[in-house]
Amino acid sequence: MEIKGFTFSAVEAAVKKPGRIDFALICSDVPAAVAAVFTTNKVKAAPVLLSMERVKSGYARAVVVNSGNANACTGVQGMTDALETCRAVAGLLNCHEDSVLVASTGVIGQPLPMERLRKAIPGLVHNLSRGGLPEIAGAIMTTDTFPKMETRVGKAGGKEYSIAGVAKGAGMIMPNMATMLSFIITDAAVDPLFLQDVFSRSVDISFNCISVDGDTSTNDTALIMANGLAGNPDIRPATAEAEAFEMLLRDVLLGLARQIIKDGEGATKFVEIEVTGAVSDGDAKKAAMAIANSLLVKTAFFGQDANWGRILAAAGYSGAEIDMNRTALFFDDVQMVRDGIFAGGDADARGTEVLKKNEFSVTVDLGVGTGKATVYTNDLSYDYVKINADYRT
Amino acid sequence: MEIKGFTFSAVEAAVKKPGRIDFALICSDVPAAVAAVFTTNKVKAAPVLLSMERVKSGYARAVVVNSGNANACTGVQGMTDALETCRAVAGLLNCHEDSVLVASTGVIGQPLPMERLRKAIPGLVHNLSRGGLPEIAGAIMTTDTFPKMETRVGKAGGKEYSIAGVAKGAGMIMPNMATMLSFIITDAAVDPLFLQDVFSRSVDISFNCISVDGDTSTNDTALIMANGLAGNPDIRPATAEAEAFEMLLRDVLLGLARQIIKDGEGATKFVEIEVTGAVSDGDAKKAAMAIANSLLVKTAFFGQDANWGRILAAAGYSGAEIDMNRTALFFDDVQMVRDGIFAGGDADARGTEVLKKNEFSVTVDLGVGTGKATVYTNDLSYDYVKINADYRT
Repeated sequence: MEIKGFTFSAVEAAVKKPGRIDFALICSDVPAAVAAVFTTNKVKAAPVLLSMERVKSGYARAVVVNSGNANACTGVQGMTDALETCRAVAGLLNCHEDSVLVASTGVIGQPLPMERLRKAIPGLVHNLSRGGLPEIAGAIMTTDTFPKMETRVGKAGGKEYSIAGVAKGAGMIMPNMATMLSFIITDAAVDPLFLQDVFSRSVDISFNCISVDGDTSTNDTALIMANGLAGNPDIRPATAEAEAFEMLLRDVLLGLARQIIKDGEGATKFVEIEVTGAVSDGDAKKAAMAIANSLLVKTAFFGQDANWGRILAAAGYSGAEIDMNRTALFFDDVQMVRDGIFAGGDADARGTEVLKKNEFSVTVDLGVGTGKATVYTNDLSYDYVKINADYRT
Repeated sequence: MEIKGFTFSAVEAAVKKPGRIDFALICSDVPAAVAAVFTTNKVKAAPVLLSMERVKSGYARAVVVNSGNANACTGVQGMTDALETCRAVAGLLNCHEDSVLVASTGVIGQPLPMERLRKAIPGLVHNLSRGGLPEIAGAIMTTDTFPKMETRVGKAGGKEYSIAGVAKGAGMIMPNMATMLSFIITDAAVDPLFLQDVFSRSVDISFNCISVDGDTSTNDTALIMANGLAGNPDIRPATAEAEAFEMLLRDVLLGLARQIIKDGEGATKFVEIEVTGAVSDGDAKKAAMAIANSLLVKTAFFGQDANWGRILAAAGYSGAEIDMNRTALFFDDVQMVRDGIFAGGDADARGTEVLKKNEFSVTVDLGVGTGKATVYTNDLSYDYVKINADYRT
């Protein structure tokens, strides 16, 4: 699949250690409309601060990204390094340096190995080719175990267009957002203001609805570039084409979000947490995220233990309104709790069977309204601890 | 050490399974002034709801407690069972049932085995003796590996008095509060309103400043009974004796809090997190608790990895104000971060040495004010996962 007018490159810069592709470039032949969502962490990495500024123009030509080093907590030097990287790429692409965005992921607090990046930049730009999006997905991995990519095809103004996206996840995965990078590209022509709207909304129900460990990183960046080379007239809000575009974009992001959860550090289970009967959708999300983040819930999932009490306890401390005498809880379609107490019968045995599956859903009804929310999480295993105890070394 | 006018009893009721002491009673010869702090979880166990009501009178004679079953999410039956337990104990003590408090800890969602409790109550009351506080500490344990007890001696109005306390902790340990029970007794005479004030304040800087896993349980109960049999005139607020009493009480609670953290499920490290330079003490506590609860920070402690970036990242997403260009971070007295970046030199090697110790402190200066807070946490090990994956089975 080709996304018209985009080229890709990924090379080895030996950011952390030799032997892996860790430096990548996505480039549009023409200036592309750009929209982005960044980490809400007050400690923001230099590349985040720089890209936040640059997306304000609404247009970009390229994004350069490294894995292995987050360029976070690196002070003035970090910003100097981010600027220099963009400038060097822009020089070789023959575009204004302000139109090159930058992202980094990896260890916090160490200066970028600029000598190695400098040396790698000419090869990175020279290497640009039409088909290399899968290599980008590989190059941005850190503790990810597989590359994450989604593609969809749509139509607008009689022209076919494509949307493709890559992401990395693994740890520090929490709404707003995650140790997460995601780059989405489309050759559709999209009104720039609408692009930011639709992108923010789609991130909100995908990347902002997943949790691996409740930590929010310093480097989260999700961005979309739309270069219009499909030839359709600009997609504008409140049209059938806008709706179709939003559906496809949401699909791409949800697909990537699900892949991130499945590849959560040490994860053995993929769990959909649905909260219903809340006083508002916001309250429902609060309860769902508390459940998704609870260590006691996540270790019970790992242990395949139908311990629904921990789930109600997490809903109880989430801050969401709850009427204990009217709560219900299901594992898939097995009702475990009715009116706040154990549903009885063979629910325990049947619920335990559900928890033995690799994928299942937990539904909790708070019994106080019609608000609802769905989030995605996984279990907490020995391997999560192992991976994160050993990460730096 | 004797605390005048208190008797204790602990027996086996086989709440979960035979072979361990799991049913306990603390009794004052005379009505004692009582103050208490309960879980903030909206899902509150029946014994919590009942005791919350009963402490409003300001006086109590006894507290009966079982481990192995939380009597939470048990509906109307749960409240009936809690009432019946108190009534049976009151009948044998020959006091009003409203003056008997009750607490439970253990698995959520299963009805209390009332037949076994009923059978055990006569022996429990019969067994009351002066010296048995250590047995209470043992009887309330669940996944705790050692009993937790602290005692202090003070003087008021020329009379010597004692304060003693027991606690259980282990998992679901989070401010406001924990899967935590704590019972404090003193023979000092204390003005009842002052008792609640001083107890709330002391809980706030002890039990509410510790975190094992960020989960808040349905059953947390901390209460103090002061029976006045030391013979001193009532300790009243804003006196030197009040100050001395508060210091001792705080000491007892902090001692118990430290023991809870040391015995945190799977814990191998005891870590004091001190945040300074915050815009307010509240902001400092927010940042300290985010650090204390971060899985990435806690796994790094377990891995003895001087990964200070994760600590700053946690402070960054805590919601506390932070000036990245002025932050500082220390492991014990080793400065790792100066003005927001790595302090350089041999800090990494020296910081790693600190993290190899069983106890160490982490100090983070946010660089924006004079607010400060200290909280206590531990590391996240394989064993935490193991204990909680297998807890019910």
